[in-house]
Amino acid sequence: MMEQWLTGLKTDTAQEGYELAIKLARKGVGLTQPDEAVRKRLRLKYAEDADSLTFASQVIAVHFQTVAAANDYWK
Amino acid sequence: MMEQWLTGLKTDTAQEGYELAIKLARKGVGLTQPDEAVRKRLRLKYAEDADSLTFASQVIAVHFQTVAAANDYWK
Amino acid sequence: MMEQWLTGLKTDTAQEGYELAIKLARKGVGLTQPDEAVRKRLRLKYAEDADSLTFASQVIAVHFQTVAAANDYWK
Amino acid sequence: MMEQWLTGLKTDTAQEGYELAIKLARKGVGLTQPDEAVRKRLRLKYAEDADSLTFASQVIAVHFQTVAAANDYWK
Amino acid sequence: MMEQWLTGLKTDTAQEGYELAIKLARKGVGLTQPDEAVRKRLRLKYAEDADSLTFASQVIAVHFQTVAAANDYWK
Amino acid sequence: MMEQWLTGLKTDTAQEGYELAIKLARKGVGLTQPDEAVRKRLRLKYAEDADSLTFASQVIAVHFQTVAAANDYWK
Repeated sequence: MMEQWLTGLKTDTAQEGYELAIKLARKGVGLTQPDEAVRKRLRLKYAEDADSLTFASQVIAVHFQTVAAANDYWK
Repeated sequence: MMEQWLTGLKTDTAQEGYELAIKLARKGVGLTQPDEAVRKRLRLKYAEDADSLTFASQVIAVHFQTVAAANDYWK
Repeated sequence: MMEQWLTGLKTDTAQEGYELAIKLARKGVGLTQPDEAVRKRLRLKYAEDADSLTFASQVIAVHFQTVAAANDYWK
Repeated sequence: MMEQWLTGLKTDTAQEGYELAIKLARKGVGLTQPDEAVRKRLRLKYAEDADSLTFASQVIAVHFQTVAAANDYWK
Repeated sequence: MMEQWLTGLKTDTAQEGYELAIKLARKGVGLTQPDEAVRKRLRLKYAEDADSLTFASQVIAVHFQTVAAANDYWK
Repeated sequence: MMEQWLTGLKTDTAQEGYELAIKLARKGVGLTQPDEAVRKRLRLKYAEDADSLTFASQVIAVHFQTVAAANDYWK
């Protein structure tokens, strides 16, 4: 049983929606590699790799689509 | 004939939806590589590779879009 | 002229929809590499590569979005 | 001025929609590499590479989403 | 301030929509690498690489989804 | 607490929407690699790599989908 970490997709603002997208992207990584120390070590390395940063940014982008739709784009 | 493993896309909460997205992503891997021992070995390796983790996270993100839409974003 | 292999996107259940997504993903590969023997050989190799499995899983995920939408998410 | 190669996204069947998706994917390649001889040579090579086949299959999947939506999923 | 290069997403035909998708994809490259001479040199190289062509084709596919939706699929 | 950098997804024109998509894509990179000097160094390198440019262009494309939908495609 996973601990409670996601209560819903509604956010007050677009920026909070973006922050939620980041959280969703990181969770996907964290579930495969639950060791925080390993993740920190990997982050140091991929933070120096342009493509790695781009790939990570893309996952955020996909989740942001979902969160934005869930909030009717904060219209 | 595949065994029954997916009964629908409805979930009670967003977090359960995320868990379903993970299940859908893993199933896509499991169908190509049905050997659990091989998958476990591969997981050990890619869990140490930042890009592999990001790619896996992206598949979850794509499935989460589907599950979230199926649940009308748990509005 | 391609033989008839796809009659529609409607399926009775979400799981059958997932199976259709797999079929759609494999067809995309089969059309570029029609030689079943070559595909079998390639599958043996990429089934041992974590990223290859993830990439294949992602194509299924994209098709599953389409099939799920076509079935109104089996609501 | 490009010659006329795309008259619309409507197709009679899902399978014809899939064929249109393939055409759209190939056009994206053809516009960058217009030399048919080069493309044929490249195809020989990537047809032996599992990941290349998967990537090509993914582009078809993205276009198939568009074509399927344009046809209201051939409901 | 960027010069005016995009006036809207409406096009008369699906093919013009595809051309707009290409323009949108290229703009994404051009903004990161504004040097036309460098881009031309890179294009010569990736036009000989099957995966590079596929990746470029995928960006067009994503933009074509957007343009097609903006035009209600030229129904 | 992140500083305020995103006030909403509405833009007056499609081109401003595209610029917002670029901003969203860059933010995803900036949050993982907050060091502007490192990012500048990386940008010099990936601006010479065709695939890196394509990958970056794809993230913009995904965000542009979101922004375009949020603006009802500037119809």
